[in-house]
Amino acid sequence: MSGERERHSDTGTSGVDELLDQVRSSFDDTSDPRVRDVLDALVRHSHAFMREIEPTLEEWQQGIEFLTRVGQACSSTRQEFVLLSDVLGLSMLAETINDADIETVTDSTVLGPFHMTGSPARRLGESIDMTGAGTPCVVTGSVFDPDGTTLVGATVDVWQCDGDGFYDVQKPDEIPAGNGRGLFTTDTEGRFYFRTVVPSHYPIPTDGPVGDLLRASSRHPFRPAHIHFIASADQHRDLTTHIFIAGSPYLDSDAVFAVKESLVTSLEQSDDVGLGARHGLQVPFGHATIDLVLAPSDDLPDPAGRPREEVLR
Amino acid sequence: MSGERERHSDTGTSGVDELLDQVRSSFDDTSDPRVRDVLDALVRHSHAFMREIEPTLEEWQQGIEFLTRVGQACSSTRQEFVLLSDVLGLSMLAETINDADIETVTDSTVLGPFHMTGSPARRLGESIDMTGAGTPCVVTGSVFDPDGTTLVGATVDVWQCDGDGFYDVQKPDEIPAGNGRGLFTTDTEGRFYFRTVVPSHYPIPTDGPVGDLLRASSRHPFRPAHIHFIASADQHRDLTTHIFIAGSPYLDSDAVFAVKESLVTSLEQSDDVGLGARHGLQVPFGHATIDLVLAPSDDLPDPAGRPREEVLR
Repeated sequence: MSGERERHSDTGTSGVDELLDQVRSSFDDTSDPRVRDVLDALVRHSHAFMREIEPTLEEWQQGIEFLTRVGQACSSTRQEFVLLSDVLGLSMLAETINDADIETVTDSTVLGPFHMTGSPARRLGESIDMTGAGTPCVVTGSVFDPDGTTLVGATVDVWQCDGDGFYDVQKPDEIPAGNGRGLFTTDTEGRFYFRTVVPSHYPIPTDGPVGDLLRASSRHPFRPAHIHFIASADQHRDLTTHIFIAGSPYLDSDAVFAVKESLVTSLEQSDDVGLGARHGLQVPFGHATIDLVLAPSDDLPDPAGRPREEVLR
Repeated sequence: MSGERERHSDTGTSGVDELLDQVRSSFDDTSDPRVRDVLDALVRHSHAFMREIEPTLEEWQQGIEFLTRVGQACSSTRQEFVLLSDVLGLSMLAETINDADIETVTDSTVLGPFHMTGSPARRLGESIDMTGAGTPCVVTGSVFDPDGTTLVGATVDVWQCDGDGFYDVQKPDEIPAGNGRGLFTTDTEGRFYFRTVVPSHYPIPTDGPVGDLLRASSRHPFRPAHIHFIASADQHRDLTTHIFIAGSPYLDSDAVFAVKESLVTSLEQSDDVGLGARHGLQVPFGHATIDLVLAPSDDLPDPAGRPREEVLR
């Protein structure tokens, strides 16, 4: 009997090759050429993955159940598929592919899963800390074009965890909505500034299927301390980035692979009495500065080489 | 300025290659070697997919939203990820990889997304049609070992849509639960038999994200008429298969790529008065027969070459 029990890999691949051709052909009539290309690549790479791992049907079922659990863990305040993309390095890969690649532009990094609620609009100088807990500090910066022109009226969307490592949406009963978040508009000199608390390093949420994945692979769930930014200005590409707090644990092993050396920023102890007074703080206080340099969008093609207007149709 | 705006693909791939190495290394401490291999393959193939299509960040976001919608369309009576796996040919690929590959064993095909509720246990000869609508017919068959031994006490799980193309779970308000489903046990001669109605060809559910995918690619959603079976017997591998009704539309373009020529079965017009009487039918009536031949499980390795007991631990 054992002689008959040959594997497909021993007896040729015609069955699986024919199936692959059949599936690829089924997408031939896709009207949008970009959608057709993406689906064709998805079919080829997903079939290659499955042909490499040769799952048992129990394993295939486990895969279906895992993806289902990821989808069902998503809510208006939680994005488990972004988290999965993050821990597989796919979010950072997408950022890297889309990096403007102009040397003078600020490096981008991942969006992360906590940008699902709109940040409240705030006046320059306002505190984004609504709880009074944690160590206060000041963040100041400017938004620039690569040629050094300051960008007036640019929007700077900021979000961060608190001093205990929690975003507002993770503890809706304890932390007021909007804590650690702010939407600022740069002044006539392109500047933005606000008071906040020093963010903590923190674990990404591990009570869902992505946590199971990390445990199964003995990976720690921690991210080094950071503050998120999305800077936007007319005729410029949006910049999604962080500042990482120098000296934080896990700078060398971020669970989502997002650290870039250029984004690590020192929280200096400031003796500037005037700056402190404007933010209601006595010296010395922590002060981080960041300049956000945005790439012009005028004629910059998207990563796949298409003009921007076609992609954004 | 344009000279500075070079694509990563023009300037080398060190950023994305380094990232890939970093992500692969992060899974090095996975204790289960099978899980480690699967995760490593997942990382390599998913990165290769993304590096080929070079998504914009808007497209990455659309991908996240699509997967989230698939997960949220799943419920106790709907499995949209199975449906996605089906229309991408991945379910049929998993079946093909796991096919026992013994010439005399009945060909397997996909499980499909409608096997989420347990079939009610039924006596041999009982009707699985609980509504009285549709064209009645009789299905008879036997379960065998490849050496021709009949398998007594084997279980045969049957499920199908009704004459209008709907499974019970799709219309819970109109169709009684368990309609078109039955769990039978073979008699002392390895036989099973039941009355049912002739199933219709039908569209897979298109009101969810998988329907959007089919519409975007101008694919029709139809499956040819079929009846599902899972046959199980001690010391044999479960067999998941269909009979397809000969002459049904869409036999040459099944939306889930599941048709195998060997599984296409004629619904013969029977003049057997005794058989008809035992199922409460007058001649002539439709009669389909199917023999289900199961592979022994004794020492059959799983597709990845591991002994069965290790996989099923």
